[in-house]
Amino acid sequence: MNNFADKLIEKIREKGSVICVGLDPRLNQIPKFIRDKVLKEYPENKLKAAAEAIIEFNKGIIDAVYDLVPIVKPQIAFYELFGEEGVRAFRETIAYAKSKGLLVIADVKRNDIGSTAKAYAEAHFGEVDVFGEKEFIFDADALTITPYLGWDGIKPFIEVCQKHGRGIFILVKTSNTSSGDLQDLCMKDGNSVYEIIGNFVDSWGADEIGEEGYSSVGAVVGATYPEQAKKLRKIMPNAFFLVPGYGAQGGGAQDVKPCFNKDGLGAIVNSSRGITFAYEKMDGFSEKEYAKAARKAVQDMNKDLKAVL
Amino acid sequence: MNNFADKLIEKIREKGSVICVGLDPRLNQIPKFIRDKVLKEYPENKLKAAAEAIIEFNKGIIDAVYDLVPIVKPQIAFYELFGEEGVRAFRETIAYAKSKGLLVIADVKRNDIGSTAKAYAEAHFGEVDVFGEKEFIFDADALTITPYLGWDGIKPFIEVCQKHGRGIFILVKTSNTSSGDLQDLCMKDGNSVYEIIGNFVDSWGADEIGEEGYSSVGAVVGATYPEQAKKLRKIMPNAFFLVPGYGAQGGGAQDVKPCFNKDGLGAIVNSSRGITFAYEKMDGFSEKEYAKAARKAVQDMNKDLKAVL
Repeated sequence: MNNFADKLIEKIREKGSVICVGLDPRLNQIPKFIRDKVLKEYPENKLKAAAEAIIEFNKGIIDAVYDLVPIVKPQIAFYELFGEEGVRAFRETIAYAKSKGLLVIADVKRNDIGSTAKAYAEAHFGEVDVFGEKEFIFDADALTITPYLGWDGIKPFIEVCQKHGRGIFILVKTSNTSSGDLQDLCMKDGNSVYEIIGNFVDSWGADEIGEEGYSSVGAVVGATYPEQAKKLRKIMPNAFFLVPGYGAQGGGAQDVKPCFNKDGLGAIVNSSRGITFAYEKMDGFSEKEYAKAARKAVQDMNKDLKAVL
Repeated sequence: MNNFADKLIEKIREKGSVICVGLDPRLNQIPKFIRDKVLKEYPENKLKAAAEAIIEFNKGIIDAVYDLVPIVKPQIAFYELFGEEGVRAFRETIAYAKSKGLLVIADVKRNDIGSTAKAYAEAHFGEVDVFGEKEFIFDADALTITPYLGWDGIKPFIEVCQKHGRGIFILVKTSNTSSGDLQDLCMKDGNSVYEIIGNFVDSWGADEIGEEGYSSVGAVVGATYPEQAKKLRKIMPNAFFLVPGYGAQGGGAQDVKPCFNKDGLGAIVNSSRGITFAYEKMDGFSEKEYAKAARKAVQDMNKDLKAVL
């Protein structure tokens, strides 16, 4: 099986879940017992200490949820904060999640053209030529990608998808308040920018459709815009949607429903803070039980979604 | 002086040049004597060897051109290729260029929303809270940014610009062949997407104008589209343009002319391969003289630009 959408569907069925757990570690919200421990271990190298805190925290979350969800999504900004040490933590987080049988979306929102896009693609989910030897570097299963540069900026990523069974999720309609600034602009023909990008995604992914009928070229569609999601579901029948905006950003289970097809497939729903830092808001969990709280949050979210899907 | 545009203009006047040298190292084009040396030094760690080759190569280029140009622009994709070691080389390249009195644009084309955009901004040109201590991490002077997410994705970067005298260049009309896929779409009111984004950039940067009349919120406008550049120069009179596409991508000095204002300011023109790998194409330089060849390429480009500006 060398199509990302097929692999994703297999994992969704195996786990009985469409949740994507966002791994966006925020150092000041990582439980104090972990922070104290790493500061004792690396008192002279605080960036290394931060990286180790992130790795330990993420491993705890992954151990607690890997049997319940198909996929996780580390957001690289929260790792780049700590320079090359943080980037190491990003790479090790991906490796650990994969070792537990999870698929991994590297949420990098990269974009550039030609040889630069090719370099991003090789680095994040392809192979890199290191003095004549081919090596996987970050080795993610899928990436998030920005479409502002058009086809030139997408093609190098799709070529790596084909070669290594990887997937991409292209930003179409994002979950934030001002996503309409550009995405809702209305064209002469009555279409909005997000609809046109949706049409592009549909055609860019047309040759990448797997045995289950879904393409390895997917779309990011925010849970906060259910009306637009309904339109986009029709425009991109074969695309998998990565749906941010559930929970902390205000989207509920009813809001994500339009992102799914009638077969119950076609979308994964991301939650980050609502799961990883559940211990802060949920009754009955101490900070030492942050992983237990995350597991409970995933179970609750699985139930919440199943009730409407 | 705490406005990026003011600092840039000061450097442009000091050096008598509007060239931005793109530092996009490609391992297989780095001279063989450097590659042989690092492989001998780090035979067991090829990623570290690659990082060291990049650092040595970049230092050679920087030493050869720092008195001739105001600014350099490393493109992070070519560093991410080598994982955290490559990212270290990126950080050390920025630090070295700054130590030689150059300004540095980190060409990262980052984009995200809210707290994630804030994390990118802190990491790349702001301060990061590392266990209670504020630290500059990548410490660039300016970043390239993608506008697909609207104001939410721009604001956190502008806040860091204000605090630390940094600058951003927002993608408006890029130099690639398919940049029109999205950027040339025509709205109901007759404007194209790139013109609308140009208007956004003008208004987003209106409060960031320095003593010289230019804003620290700039725009990326490709040398390959001079007609569009002419329009954009009028739409964004106060924005500095970062102009890619000169040389290797086909743009000439006449093509970049519309990017400048009548005061001879308002743009910097990037060249990457044409300078850093000049030794491959220019007669009379051995690979050991790659830095000399780069200096000659910069001198030629300075002359070429001065003839038309």
